[in-house]
Amino acid sequence: MQHERRNISMLMDLYEMTMAHGYFTKQDNTDRVAFDVFYRRNPDQGGFAIFGGLEQVVEYILNLHFDDEDIGYFKSLNLFSDEFLEYLRNFKFTGDVYAFKEGTIIYPNEPIMTIVAPLIDAQIVETAVLTMINHQSLIATKANRIVRAADGRIVSDFGARRAHNVDAAVYGARAAYIGGVHGTATVLAGQQFGIPVNGTMAHSWVMYHDTEYEAFKAYAEVYPDNPVFLVDTYDVLNSGIPNAIKVAKEVLEPQGYRLKGIRLDSGDLAYLAKHARHMLDEAGMEDCKIMASNSLDEYTITSLLYQGGPIDIFGVGERLITSKTDPVFGAVYKIAGIQKHGEWEPRIKISESVTKITNPGLKKVYRVYSEEGKAIAELLTLPHEVPSTNSPYRYIDPEKPWKELYFENCTFKDMQELVIKDGEQVVASPSLEAIRSYVQYQLENEIWEEEQRFENPHRHYLDMSPEYYHMKMDLLNRIGRKK
Amino acid sequence: MQHERRNISMLMDLYEMTMAHGYFTKQDNTDRVAFDVFYRRNPDQGGFAIFGGLEQVVEYILNLHFDDEDIGYFKSLNLFSDEFLEYLRNFKFTGDVYAFKEGTIIYPNEPIMTIVAPLIDAQIVETAVLTMINHQSLIATKANRIVRAADGRIVSDFGARRAHNVDAAVYGARAAYIGGVHGTATVLAGQQFGIPVNGTMAHSWVMYHDTEYEAFKAYAEVYPDNPVFLVDTYDVLNSGIPNAIKVAKEVLEPQGYRLKGIRLDSGDLAYLAKHARHMLDEAGMEDCKIMASNSLDEYTITSLLYQGGPIDIFGVGERLITSKTDPVFGAVYKIAGIQKHGEWEPRIKISESVTKITNPGLKKVYRVYSEEGKAIAELLTLPHEVPSTNSPYRYIDPEKPWKELYFENCTFKDMQELVIKDGEQVVASPSLEAIRSYVQYQLENEIWEEEQRFENPHRHYLDMSPEYYHMKMDLLNRIGRKK
Repeated sequence: MQHERRNISMLMDLYEMTMAHGYFTKQDNTDRVAFDVFYRRNPDQGGFAIFGGLEQVVEYILNLHFDDEDIGYFKSLNLFSDEFLEYLRNFKFTGDVYAFKEGTIIYPNEPIMTIVAPLIDAQIVETAVLTMINHQSLIATKANRIVRAADGRIVSDFGARRAHNVDAAVYGARAAYIGGVHGTATVLAGQQFGIPVNGTMAHSWVMYHDTEYEAFKAYAEVYPDNPVFLVDTYDVLNSGIPNAIKVAKEVLEPQGYRLKGIRLDSGDLAYLAKHARHMLDEAGMEDCKIMASNSLDEYTITSLLYQGGPIDIFGVGERLITSKTDPVFGAVYKIAGIQKHGEWEPRIKISESVTKITNPGLKKVYRVYSEEGKAIAELLTLPHEVPSTNSPYRYIDPEKPWKELYFENCTFKDMQELVIKDGEQVVASPSLEAIRSYVQYQLENEIWEEEQRFENPHRHYLDMSPEYYHMKMDLLNRIGRKK
Repeated sequence: MQHERRNISMLMDLYEMTMAHGYFTKQDNTDRVAFDVFYRRNPDQGGFAIFGGLEQVVEYILNLHFDDEDIGYFKSLNLFSDEFLEYLRNFKFTGDVYAFKEGTIIYPNEPIMTIVAPLIDAQIVETAVLTMINHQSLIATKANRIVRAADGRIVSDFGARRAHNVDAAVYGARAAYIGGVHGTATVLAGQQFGIPVNGTMAHSWVMYHDTEYEAFKAYAEVYPDNPVFLVDTYDVLNSGIPNAIKVAKEVLEPQGYRLKGIRLDSGDLAYLAKHARHMLDEAGMEDCKIMASNSLDEYTITSLLYQGGPIDIFGVGERLITSKTDPVFGAVYKIAGIQKHGEWEPRIKISESVTKITNPGLKKVYRVYSEEGKAIAELLTLPHEVPSTNSPYRYIDPEKPWKELYFENCTFKDMQELVIKDGEQVVASPSLEAIRSYVQYQLENEIWEEEQRFENPHRHYLDMSPEYYHMKMDLLNRIGRKK
């Protein structure tokens, strides 16, 4: 199990390295630069997302290096000077990384991570940082939607075979667990991250045996304390359920065991579950759970439960592991400022699309909590500002800057923490269980239910301190004049 | 660059191993079993898919093993007997693998791969085989759609940052290259598979410099023979293009170089490209290419070209690397037969959904070619049948079995080849270039244009020999009677 030992330093877009070589050649004259990681749109038109992948990002940054084979490959491209390749040979990331805690509920356009580093260091990590954060944030967010739809019922990740290759299965299972699923079928994810693993039987088990009855009987004999029978290979109501009940009565119950569950994997799951429930109850098997799988997601689960489908456990595969209804998490990595001779200058991207204008400069992100402890808004300030909790705090809603608005009786939480300082890890990554619990804690205590709705959820505010807002406006005005 | 050395033997759903342990415990009495890999539906309602991932599947099967750490993990689950764990310690895949050539144009419900192996060997490879084939077939198919939409223009994969983690970026780039893209930005894919790599500059390069002009000038000085300027950081037509022309005239042309291209990454790409083209032509820069990126896929590219957008190169990211409009390739792995005392018995899955009924038994798949060399249908036969090319060949369309149909003057190509025999590779994997060329060859010469349409393409026929059809019907009738 050598999975951990991979060197993924070469996961980057080529332009990271051509730009790095350009900066090296032209002798970059900055002390440091700051890049913000943020995203612009919640998946599935939801009210928030969940920040995943930080632990892997930190590992990647700490291990970033280029070995002889890598240098040889770069040399073969005939793009880079020998001096630069020699520089790469001794390269080590020496910057600082500030980030939200993994598992934080996040909102569009706030910097969930900021990298403050020498220019080349900050540039070449872009691609891998985004790939890891985009993937795990996507799946954690989707998994959480599915878990919320299941409304307290068990949800398990069955997605490996439809994942976008091995990493997507394994890190997807990790992210799904952060999002709240109760376990995974993916063994490598269980081994690597300690996620509870589970599984039942495949159709091939039933088809291998001469009859469905023999298949269930053989399974019950090997796993008497843990049997879940897959009942849809031939005919759920006329064959699958009757055979399951027969084996329960003939093999399990005489030994003091009970049939733990049956699984439906095709057909109309609500209809079949209702009839299966009735047949099981009639047979005195009220404790036998009904598990459903087959292209489930938050929408189908909501609909099945609305129709009263008595389903206890959901096995969720392709639509979770690919986030099928919205498979792209679009976090970006944008330069926010450059430091020359100790002084920071903000940078802004205007672009042809208004929605792509960035929030410039070094900044702090505060989450603003009401007296009841609910997260009511995010607040961007300049780095030196410390919002007062003692008196009404004047802020600006950048979409309605003419309004005079105040936070009253609120508390402010500084959301970014320094996790890597001068290239060394200064805060240990929390355990996976702690990350998962943190997600649940926030949703139960801090995040408005109105933001947890699937349809047209409340949009969380991203407000600004007056100083920060005026800095941004001044910068836009100066660029407008330059043209 | 230790990427190759990963042990992915543990990528499996837990039930593969609980079933394997069940078979081990109950003393499986078969010689061998046969599992077919097939898919049911073309992505994006297209006319076909492209088979990708075989080389990685073969590597995985040949390397399949469980080390001490793996055995220890299985032991910790308290599900498996010590005898079984000892068996796993010495496990090696000893079966046969038949497969279509990688890069073959494939159609629903035909076995693109068949594994004939001892039961446990065949069972435990299921998940990883599907994960790898599903991912690469998905991306190869999507990439090919995008390349066809670009209609001869250059397409490059820019997707790494939006891929579902590292493997999805790297194997996705491989699959996209098979599908016909001309290169990738992903360095690790270039290093690992020899795919041509390319890239331009990011917005951060422009924003780092005090002005856009200085940014372009600096880039031109470092890369005078290969410059492509990103022109949308501030204002394409009022700033980006004028600065690009200025730097071309002041820095590049005096040294005998030309500006190779400009890149548009936001705004209305058709409108901006038309105006940019006009400005560049006016400046005598007819050879300067226009590259476009920003959420492109086959639909947006078709639309941009329909409007006459003079775009020469497409950089395609998130919608390619996630196959955004249809991110699941649903290949499945179904038991087709079991061999006892030398005799094969077919197996069939009925299920609650008619579309999920499998094609049972050992079988051959032939592609049927017309006299002109066009692939007109697929034909399933029993293993011993050799369709004659000398006289009209009677076949059955299983959707209209009452019709008396004949192939006349056709040739038949046996599509599966034995790639692994008794656990050893017997056919070397072709080079990536050969796989990519094979895709192009088929599309240019063998596959009807009507199947290559995006909208409502011709549906390729899956026909059966009379003997095969009757075997399937007999099996269905017998199961119907058993109930």
